[in-house]
Amino acid sequence: MFDLYIANKNYSSWSLRPWVLLKALEIPFNEHLMPFEGGFGESHTTFKRFSPSGLVPCLVDNDHNVAVWDSLAIVEYVAETHPNVWPQAREARAWARSASAEMHSGFGALRDECSMNCGVRVAMNELSPGLNSNLARLDALWQEGLARFGGPFLAGERFTAVDAFYAPVAFRIQTFNLPLSEASLAYVQRLLALPAMQEWYEAALKETWREPMHEEETVKHATLLSDERAIG
Amino acid sequence: MFDLYIANKNYSSWSLRPWVLLKALEIPFNEHLMPFEGGFGESHTTFKRFSPSGLVPCLVDNDHNVAVWDSLAIVEYVAETHPNVWPQAREARAWARSASAEMHSGFGALRDECSMNCGVRVAMNELSPGLNSNLARLDALWQEGLARFGGPFLAGERFTAVDAFYAPVAFRIQTFNLPLSEASLAYVQRLLALPAMQEWYEAALKETWREPMHEEETVKHATLLSDERAIG
Repeated sequence: MFDLYIANKNYSSWSLRPWVLLKALEIPFNEHLMPFEGGFGESHTTFKRFSPSGLVPCLVDNDHNVAVWDSLAIVEYVAETHPNVWPQAREARAWARSASAEMHSGFGALRDECSMNCGVRVAMNELSPGLNSNLARLDALWQEGLARFGGPFLAGERFTAVDAFYAPVAFRIQTFNLPLSEASLAYVQRLLALPAMQEWYEAALKETWREPMHEEETVKHATLLSDERAIG
Repeated sequence: MFDLYIANKNYSSWSLRPWVLLKALEIPFNEHLMPFEGGFGESHTTFKRFSPSGLVPCLVDNDHNVAVWDSLAIVEYVAETHPNVWPQAREARAWARSASAEMHSGFGALRDECSMNCGVRVAMNELSPGLNSNLARLDALWQEGLARFGGPFLAGERFTAVDAFYAPVAFRIQTFNLPLSEASLAYVQRLLALPAMQEWYEAALKETWREPMHEEETVKHATLLSDERAIG
């Protein structure tokens, strides 16, 4: 049985990736939610108790005494015993791995300027050149995958790890109302409608923890419109 | 047969990773070196001719009409047909994948402040808090791997993909003379002594292209001591 350590559902985009993959593929796991506390530095110290890098997510496989402390490494670890993690066809699998890895190390402006904050809705004051460039690449990539492999998911008819890797982007697009093509926005709606994504979202709205650093990041380039979250 | 598209050996740390892996494991490939031209933006446009993201490295598998446009995705693609890419034991393989992925998305200060420039030697003016934190984590990670799996490589007795992922760090440590524990510095020397690393280094020294952006980055936080490269 897997143990998956994650942080706040409202904020932790990295945590969402393996969580939504395991849920969507119906792979059982024990969830351990460790809320951020006192800013990133202090959380880091706490998280070191279970994660060698001090970062979440971290998957522990108790049957094999293994800790896997990165979202993409978790995906590959789970894929070794669960063939549905990646697409079956070699070409689609290579594409899905490339697209997942591109998100893993890239899209810096999108991650910095539109950090995940599931429960709020804001209007962007302006789109920086870096963000526009990221959105153009995101749109091209999604449209390529959807067209080439036939949809409704990025690498074909099944939800696979590449969709899990872009799942946080769906929440960012909802929060920041980012402009994309019709085909990409329809894909965002399909992601948001998934039972696993709805379950994450409902749990995020119920959280009453507020992390000042994350809240400030959200409105650094944007104006708050509404907050759907429970009041603590 | 694989075709591997890379950029300047002197500068392109991402290119080095799959290149040194294929060389060290004696997996044949055709090398296509596309030098950076006119800054990152213009190279990006040129690179789009063979790489969907406009980034290098990109591996093309002509036998299967597949392009893989990210270093970690390339490693996983090659691992599907070459079992020596990752360690054989599950625990070592999970560790190696986690450590590789941590480098793939992390160590931002090390990458920004000590960008790869194989042929020069500099003295750092000061070590920023971010860089010190990265070096502490790097040292802990390397020492853990070397102790746990017995060395001389990070995940045991063979050179595997996790060593390829940290190969650019060996050149950075040489260029910037960064402080690390004795065990980690000995590992750096073992990496630098590998025939594949020597071959890359010799080729880097012979390059006469000079990229102003990379050259400026190198001395942004450091003072130039010497330049071992050929004069164009």
